[in-house]
Amino acid sequence: MPVPSFSRLLGRPLPRSSARDERLPNLQALPILSSDALSSVAYATEAALGILILGGSAALTLSLPITLAIIGLIAIVVLSYRQAIAAYPEGGGSYVVARDNLGRNVGLVAAAALLIDYTLTAAVSLMAGTQALSSLDPSLLAFEVPIALLLLVLVGWANLRGLREAGRVFALPTYAFVVMILLLTVAGLRDLTFHHGWSPDAPTFTAALQPIGLFLILRAFSSGCSAMTGIEAIANGVQVFHEPAPLNARKTLLVMGILLSAMFLAISTMGFMYGVVPNPDITVLAQIGQRVFGGGSVLYWILQISTLLILVLAANTAFSGFPRLAAMLAEDHCLPMQMKLLGDRLVYQNGIGVLVAITALIIVICRGDTTVAVNLYALGVFTAFTLSQLGLVRRWWKLRGEGWQGRMAMNALGSITTFVVLMVIVVSKFDEGAWTVVIAIPLLVWGLALIRRRYREVFSALAPDPDGSPLKLVPRDPPSGHHAIVWIASIMKPSLEAVRYACSFADSVTAVLVVQKGEDAGQLSQMWDRYVGSDTGELELVLLDSPFSSLLDPFCDFVMEQEQRHPERITTVVMPVAIPRDRLDVALLNQRAGNLFEALSTDQSRVFSIVRYFVPPRSTQGGATSSGSME
Amino acid sequence: MPVPSFSRLLGRPLPRSSARDERLPNLQALPILSSDALSSVAYATEAALGILILGGSAALTLSLPITLAIIGLIAIVVLSYRQAIAAYPEGGGSYVVARDNLGRNVGLVAAAALLIDYTLTAAVSLMAGTQALSSLDPSLLAFEVPIALLLLVLVGWANLRGLREAGRVFALPTYAFVVMILLLTVAGLRDLTFHHGWSPDAPTFTAALQPIGLFLILRAFSSGCSAMTGIEAIANGVQVFHEPAPLNARKTLLVMGILLSAMFLAISTMGFMYGVVPNPDITVLAQIGQRVFGGGSVLYWILQISTLLILVLAANTAFSGFPRLAAMLAEDHCLPMQMKLLGDRLVYQNGIGVLVAITALIIVICRGDTTVAVNLYALGVFTAFTLSQLGLVRRWWKLRGEGWQGRMAMNALGSITTFVVLMVIVVSKFDEGAWTVVIAIPLLVWGLALIRRRYREVFSALAPDPDGSPLKLVPRDPPSGHHAIVWIASIMKPSLEAVRYACSFADSVTAVLVVQKGEDAGQLSQMWDRYVGSDTGELELVLLDSPFSSLLDPFCDFVMEQEQRHPERITTVVMPVAIPRDRLDVALLNQRAGNLFEALSTDQSRVFSIVRYFVPPRSTQGGATSSGSME
Repeated sequence: MPVPSFSRLLGRPLPRSSARDERLPNLQALPILSSDALSSVAYATEAALGILILGGSAALTLSLPITLAIIGLIAIVVLSYRQAIAAYPEGGGSYVVARDNLGRNVGLVAAAALLIDYTLTAAVSLMAGTQALSSLDPSLLAFEVPIALLLLVLVGWANLRGLREAGRVFALPTYAFVVMILLLTVAGLRDLTFHHGWSPDAPTFTAALQPIGLFLILRAFSSGCSAMTGIEAIANGVQVFHEPAPLNARKTLLVMGILLSAMFLAISTMGFMYGVVPNPDITVLAQIGQRVFGGGSVLYWILQISTLLILVLAANTAFSGFPRLAAMLAEDHCLPMQMKLLGDRLVYQNGIGVLVAITALIIVICRGDTTVAVNLYALGVFTAFTLSQLGLVRRWWKLRGEGWQGRMAMNALGSITTFVVLMVIVVSKFDEGAWTVVIAIPLLVWGLALIRRRYREVFSALAPDPDGSPLKLVPRDPPSGHHAIVWIASIMKPSLEAVRYACSFADSVTAVLVVQKGEDAGQLSQMWDRYVGSDTGELELVLLDSPFSSLLDPFCDFVMEQEQRHPERITTVVMPVAIPRDRLDVALLNQRAGNLFEALSTDQSRVFSIVRYFVPPRSTQGGATSSGSME
Repeated sequence: MPVPSFSRLLGRPLPRSSARDERLPNLQALPILSSDALSSVAYATEAALGILILGGSAALTLSLPITLAIIGLIAIVVLSYRQAIAAYPEGGGSYVVARDNLGRNVGLVAAAALLIDYTLTAAVSLMAGTQALSSLDPSLLAFEVPIALLLLVLVGWANLRGLREAGRVFALPTYAFVVMILLLTVAGLRDLTFHHGWSPDAPTFTAALQPIGLFLILRAFSSGCSAMTGIEAIANGVQVFHEPAPLNARKTLLVMGILLSAMFLAISTMGFMYGVVPNPDITVLAQIGQRVFGGGSVLYWILQISTLLILVLAANTAFSGFPRLAAMLAEDHCLPMQMKLLGDRLVYQNGIGVLVAITALIIVICRGDTTVAVNLYALGVFTAFTLSQLGLVRRWWKLRGEGWQGRMAMNALGSITTFVVLMVIVVSKFDEGAWTVVIAIPLLVWGLALIRRRYREVFSALAPDPDGSPLKLVPRDPPSGHHAIVWIASIMKPSLEAVRYACSFADSVTAVLVVQKGEDAGQLSQMWDRYVGSDTGELELVLLDSPFSSLLDPFCDFVMEQEQRHPERITTVVMPVAIPRDRLDVALLNQRAGNLFEALSTDQSRVFSIVRYFVPPRSTQGGATSSGSME
């Protein structure tokens, strides 16, 4: 049970049964699964224009052909993923597809790329959402990092509460964003037709910093490819759809691909028509909105707010994806087991915590500027694309079901195309930060593989001997001799209870008292005789001197020596602990149990027993000591 | 034993025997015990001038009569403390004297005043030392807070290492400071005689902000009283002197009082003669040094550096006084017992830690400016003075030894004088921060008394019944029934060892396995039968379902229900713990023992046994599992 204040913050525990998968109609599944993909149009055009402007304002005209090329790529990837849905109707992420078809190690590469991607999705979406907000009010520009961090904390908190249930509400921002882009397009085209007569505005003249060459175009293309993030989400979430789930998912994926292409084309076209130049203080989408709707108009505000909301939603998809992937990796023993612990609210709380921490780090390092993060982003996405398509090629080849040639060809095309784009991104973006991902992926793979190897070793060391016969254990199995060593800090009730407990099971009991400076050994012996008795057979009191200031060291030495002298005995160290029942007592009572446990851990195998004695709280002064008694 | 890196930082543990008290000749005891008192002349004149300047430059002439009044006060206090030495030859601090003669509660008032004083001594000395440094190089002015904090960390670290042994080295800075003030005086007087013809410089004209009235004079007097801090140190440390210790201490105290008075008078006189005006960027002592020795001269540098060193030494006295007083209070059960724990280096490490933390807080709050802290400082000092003198009056009255009338009269005079000064300080400084101490002392007293009362309650609750007969415990005392409940996370060697241990002493054993989502209960039962056996009598396996995600809750509920159903049995909860022997494993192995211990702590009295299983580290792969076996 969590501490009360925690449960107030996160809500009451949810029963496991409420985790059953909810099925959604296509119209609800679409917005929930595609917020990441659709929201990327809010920064993809901007990312491409941001590179092209280096070639001067003239180069901006290249944005349209680049957009068309990316739309062609989207078509190929969407068609490839429709096949993934057919192959993995239970939902196949890139990790699962790569692991099952290309082997565990290639699977780890996909996993590493995805882990990096999810954190970048969260960071880029929140930073872009903050920019949508500061485009509305420039006075917020100085606070972009704190605002992005605040949004991060909110999304993290909502996920720790297990906010997945609110799925239906999540549909609204996505549709609002789609509707606003539609409105923007219709109004923009009408405006251009009636007032401009279809001749594009001349953009503010900007001098070229670099020649317009193939390299510049490829870099702009690579940046624009950030529009393709999130396409795989529908293929990963097939089980969310109504039956027949694969059919519905394929339909929805197609609709999503068309929507994404149309929105991306519309924004790039209008950016070109209105002669928009990228500006660090106001986003490209906001600039278009200002020119079409007017700077202070209600529609402009709605456009920006819906952009913010869909971007927050997109960040939220990382919060369902990352912890789930981390839990799968933990299940495969490639990450610490803690990552698969389900919290009281049925969420992978440790995964959420790690994601919040890494995302916060990225936001702080990037200082709220998406440029570098977007560069890295596309790299991971295309690594995952390539590997999952390649896995499907391998799968069709192995299974050779009906029509396997066509399917294999489609996925081969997808895999080759995305691999080529991946190489383009690596080469063209290497200086701009791609090198970090090129280093990070192998490092992550190495770490995941190290953990997997170590878990395998540990499990084989801990597994019971498969050839051994059953232990045939029976209680009160006469042992070769049971010896208990009781730590006595002072001759008080908790210590006496511990001695009583030790006597209840051991054949011989040694009570050990380390004499502190200023204590009288003789007096302590007398107290022992007075309260325990002087003729106690196999129960003896040993008084130890402490040459150094530590009381634990002489005790540990004594225990070690006893164990070495009688290896045939089972030795149990018994420690009395006064458990505070009162906030004040927590500070007043010395909690040495943890220290002693740690100190003894450094030596041989040993049983450590804690006998609790509950100290009555202040409210029930006197007379309430009976609750501490053992019998 | 501490962690290796710790012992490298702090040095190897010292044996208790090295704590024997070292005796010092007077010439060494003087500098060690009076660095606090003598160093206060570095800021006392400045503090008084800082108030007087509010009355305009004309008011600065009042500094000489105020200095003479304070020197009179020093004489009275020194004579009073000479009597304290006679009465408490083993060293009587204000706390002990007040506690023994005026009762425990008045003792707590003295203790509270002293605790506040020690922290202010450390803070004021370090800040004044930093100012001595930045007077040398004004570019350090911006870094006063970090420099003071750095000095604090150094002094704290030196004390955690137990630097008391280096006592002899400590004599140098004090004598260097005394010699430099002497040189300054001689050179200054010569300079004034030959070049000025004994007419004081007219100070830079400053307009009066306040009228020169009694109140202003009293406030300046109160600030100047900060020169009197540290006088009690020699009386507290009588046991440091060679025999006859009380006689030597009395002599040394007299010498110290004369030195202090002479230095204070010299600095105030020269400040007046040279027309020095207080300046936040450079100390008064540094201004005098610049005029006498010349700004860039070697002597000026030596003056400033020796000022810095004696002030750091003065801060160091707080580091021996505060932890010792805290340990005495813990001994009297007025502070948590942790305060009297001696570390491996034979120092009260917790007291040092608390002092570092509070001092750092004061330095940060004051932003390196001593003004406010000096105001508060004198308040605590005079409270302690008054109470200890009053305690002595009471003592002489009770004992009525030889010449008691004279002694009582002397201490009565001291006590009345210091009480009057105390009232003057409270009234004149109330607005300038004295109110915080007026609030803090009663709060601290209340806290100390609360802790004392609670310890008394706890001890009476935990003490064995004085009228009861001895327990007459004997090992293997047949108990009414011993039941063990073993937590099984999975059927692996650590769990089997725990079951084996439970069977070695309990009459009945229940192994409890909480079935996780995705695990097959039937298969687990089969594994149990395979490895443990199917016909095990009083040893049974119980499989629990987990409706919520927590695995601990169903287990705790089961334990509670078992205990309630069989209150006659002694129940032991046995938990297997895989102990990592490898750094990597620390992250990989789930350490649930602490959580389970905490979860079970909230209920009834219960014994919690941890059976360790040591996981072999990576270097000894395979075959090394035998070390984990219990037999």
